[in-house]
Amino acid sequence: MLAIDENTITDAALAQMSETPNPRLKQIMAILVKHLHAFAREADLTPEEWLDGIKFLTAVGQTCTPYRQEFILLSDTLGLSSLINALHDRRAVEHGTKTSLVGPFYRQDSPHKELGECIAESNAGICIYGRVLNSAGQPIPGASIQIWQTDDEGVYDLQRHDPSHMDLRATFTADANGDYHLRTVRPLGYMIPLDGPVGDMIRAQRRHGYRPAHIHFMIGAPGYRELVTALYLRKDDHINSDTVFGVTDSLVTETVANDPGSPFRELPSIRFDFTLAAADAIGTGRVGADPSQITKRTASH
Amino acid sequence: MLAIDENTITDAALAQMSETPNPRLKQIMAILVKHLHAFAREADLTPEEWLDGIKFLTAVGQTCTPYRQEFILLSDTLGLSSLINALHDRRAVEHGTKTSLVGPFYRQDSPHKELGECIAESNAGICIYGRVLNSAGQPIPGASIQIWQTDDEGVYDLQRHDPSHMDLRATFTADANGDYHLRTVRPLGYMIPLDGPVGDMIRAQRRHGYRPAHIHFMIGAPGYRELVTALYLRKDDHINSDTVFGVTDSLVTETVANDPGSPFRELPSIRFDFTLAAADAIGTGRVGADPSQITKRTASH
Repeated sequence: MLAIDENTITDAALAQMSETPNPRLKQIMAILVKHLHAFAREADLTPEEWLDGIKFLTAVGQTCTPYRQEFILLSDTLGLSSLINALHDRRAVEHGTKTSLVGPFYRQDSPHKELGECIAESNAGICIYGRVLNSAGQPIPGASIQIWQTDDEGVYDLQRHDPSHMDLRATFTADANGDYHLRTVRPLGYMIPLDGPVGDMIRAQRRHGYRPAHIHFMIGAPGYRELVTALYLRKDDHINSDTVFGVTDSLVTETVANDPGSPFRELPSIRFDFTLAAADAIGTGRVGADPSQITKRTASH
Repeated sequence: MLAIDENTITDAALAQMSETPNPRLKQIMAILVKHLHAFAREADLTPEEWLDGIKFLTAVGQTCTPYRQEFILLSDTLGLSSLINALHDRRAVEHGTKTSLVGPFYRQDSPHKELGECIAESNAGICIYGRVLNSAGQPIPGASIQIWQTDDEGVYDLQRHDPSHMDLRATFTADANGDYHLRTVRPLGYMIPLDGPVGDMIRAQRRHGYRPAHIHFMIGAPGYRELVTALYLRKDDHINSDTVFGVTDSLVTETVANDPGSPFRELPSIRFDFTLAAADAIGTGRVGADPSQITKRTASH
């Protein structure tokens, strides 16, 4: 019989899980138990603190609804979602544009538009253009480019209207040269929802809770790894302190006035070329159709 | 601007939490983030696996009710609750009887009984007796001894009756020599609730889900650290494989027939002496009154 103490309990737990038939589940749970116990040991967690943690996690779970995923928000604000994306990028067989958080406002049924069209009901304020390339720098003709973003007040269509009313989202098809161009409004940054337990945590940590202005993209083509990413606007006050750690330097951009290369030279323009890595065994699936559905890539609010 | 990747994200998260005014919260969250990220990195967790984890945690939270705490059950089955208890014991200023899981069926309003009385409505089947001592082996006169357990079918009163009907629980007061003795039935082991997400996990790990037969105790006296523990019966088939890791060798006992020291020699008897450590700054509070209230010590079902 084991003498269960702070040193033997981890091996006892691993032993009891050792008959798990699924090898990957067995591996993940063993690594989880090891690190979870190491956390409790290093923090020398008291029963009272442990109970506070139980209450917090319970509140996070009970804040979730079909239209709100507080556990994803928690994962985002702890940097875990961003880490999962970074690990996903590292597993790619080729170098491509970095992944960023998909967020909860994606929907796969956005309207198809012709290149050059405006995705906003309001007047276009900026142009975005560029190319979709493979890792050798060659164009990918006919690549699918889905885009979605907030309006100029930091609000998504799904937050402002019922789901039948779509705005600021569309699907484009790159031309024979892999080129794309479109018009939209300049998005505004916003605060993540702070009215739940994650908000309590953010306030207790004296964090501001803002995300910098960004534009989401999902880009795919047969034979390539689907890319879920976002472009971040450099002039945003919170570009260096995204509450959910979606910003990384290679995804930061800004509009340029009088860009001679822009198809809409009269508009402030962003040029961004996306690079798709070749497809691999994993990560080529599609995310869900419904904004309420948790998507397969890591989300933020 | 940081280039966020799998190596830099942890420091970025810690930096954003660095202004937390409560030093203990800051410390715990920093240790948590470090180990959480180390888990994801070592497991090389994919977005799909991460999403499975999000769904699981959400289901655990949504299974919780005022009368069921699935997150505590998860903590128990991962060995975390037992580890928290072991850390609690290690912080004691003196050696005492080991802590064990309090479980969800404690209530502080159990009826006071005189020494020797039976706590079961049915006929007594066994005797439990012994002493309450300090770490020097001296008796603690007048120590409070709360006891609760299942019946001989492995069921607690709160599972069988409404809360107004108490059975198999009582509070005794040790005599002037620190002695106690009482009669009860021999409890039976039972299966933890497997109808929720934790049950899914237990089945996926091919674990049996049983707890061995045990008797809960909560023992206190002024100037001593409150002891929450349990005695486990050696002859139970699952004595070496408690699903929630409450069993440790020093808490395993068994009845003895014709024990000449027993005040009820005609009954199979358990002698167990409890040792209380001196009080310290922490861990001297009382747990809640209501079985639905999460108690301050780690629980199991």
